[in-house]
Amino acid sequence: MNTRGPLANIRVVLVETSHPGNLGAVARAMKVMGLSDLSRVNPKCGIDDEARARASGALDVLENARFHAGLDEALTDVVLAAACTSRRRDLPHPAYTPRQAAPQLLGMAHNHKVALVFGSETFGLSNQQLMKCRWLLNIPSNPEYASLNLGAAVQVLAYELRASLDDVILDLPEFELATHEAEQALIEELEKTLITIGFHNPDNPKRLLPRLRRFFAKAGLEKDEVAIWRGILSAVLTRK
Amino acid sequence: MNTRGPLANIRVVLVETSHPGNLGAVARAMKVMGLSDLSRVNPKCGIDDEARARASGALDVLENARFHAGLDEALTDVVLAAACTSRRRDLPHPAYTPRQAAPQLLGMAHNHKVALVFGSETFGLSNQQLMKCRWLLNIPSNPEYASLNLGAAVQVLAYELRASLDDVILDLPEFELATHEAEQALIEELEKTLITIGFHNPDNPKRLLPRLRRFFAKAGLEKDEVAIWRGILSAVLTRK
Repeated sequence: MNTRGPLANIRVVLVETSHPGNLGAVARAMKVMGLSDLSRVNPKCGIDDEARARASGALDVLENARFHAGLDEALTDVVLAAACTSRRRDLPHPAYTPRQAAPQLLGMAHNHKVALVFGSETFGLSNQQLMKCRWLLNIPSNPEYASLNLGAAVQVLAYELRASLDDVILDLPEFELATHEAEQALIEELEKTLITIGFHNPDNPKRLLPRLRRFFAKAGLEKDEVAIWRGILSAVLTRK
Repeated sequence: MNTRGPLANIRVVLVETSHPGNLGAVARAMKVMGLSDLSRVNPKCGIDDEARARASGALDVLENARFHAGLDEALTDVVLAAACTSRRRDLPHPAYTPRQAAPQLLGMAHNHKVALVFGSETFGLSNQQLMKCRWLLNIPSNPEYASLNLGAAVQVLAYELRASLDDVILDLPEFELATHEAEQALIEELEKTLITIGFHNPDNPKRLLPRLRRFFAKAGLEKDEVAIWRGILSAVLTRK
């Protein structure tokens, strides 16, 4: 089995990281487990000597990191974005531990790009950023001190993915998965359509959109299905 | 099950550590997973400001660390010492991955002290030191770059131990799943609606309905979601 394949398709996305040392630690944590695709979104620090020292032999991963102004740009070609967070209760997303998620993430990463999204050291991910992610990943931790360092969190997930390579779910979906971009566009179109037909009131949205997003997240939207749903929405709007 | 018990009995033993930052990172990596028993053997550095900064909220673990001149002293009351190393071939020890070892380590740690032993950043553990340990622990890593940082190695092992005891029941919000009957009725209603709005032609059905059924099956339809979709279909039909 080709074990390089899935790990090469797993992207680590760092949102608003503020400590250069963490950048280096993340690069090293990735490379030591066989990951190499690093994206930085709206970074609050640059790559300095401390970052390079902490990266050690993973300087290539650090220096090849891509730069994006916003999270959507870092996820364009991704079929599943999983947010690493300790939050859970107040969010509609399906939530998994790294161990639960790893086989499925690796299965998808066999043929598609998958992203692990990490927020800033101080503020984590905003609600708006979290809503761009389909899953939550909760790393088990000490309830009395759950403050996992950013580099350590990336290390745990990268380790879990490598350690789970033998457990990859091999009955891969035979259908091509939709990208993040296509899914976001579809949900926006669904929202507009529901407003047009008077089902959804943006001034009194209740929990409709989070619930619909969650529904689509669970379904694992495929490329063909985007076309089907777009056809349905178009038929709804053009109905005489 | 008392989950504090076994973790409280697992000691991290750092042999000849030379970088203060790593001391701090180790303390934090331990505490965040619920470990607290740290021993330093013949240390090559002291606890300085960098160590304290990297320890963050785990200053107590760092400052309560015991000091020993030799490895034997740190292992006196221990029933099993496991050496964390990338070496294997030339040694007679049984070698395990963290995942293979964790359940047994936790089982022993229920009533006994167990030690995880880590060598110096530059030289690892000497043969003499390795021969004082009963097991080897090999963390899976990238064969082209296997240089795991000391703090990261402790993080991986501490995580694996915690993840193996939690065995993870996430207190997810409870959503009631839809019955088979409710799902079938919803799909029939969807079919009728798609015919009414001219999207679906029962005389030339193609693969539309099987695809929609598959989509709903993947989503794991919930009771609330049936109500949402019924509302949407009703709004589509009553649209003026």
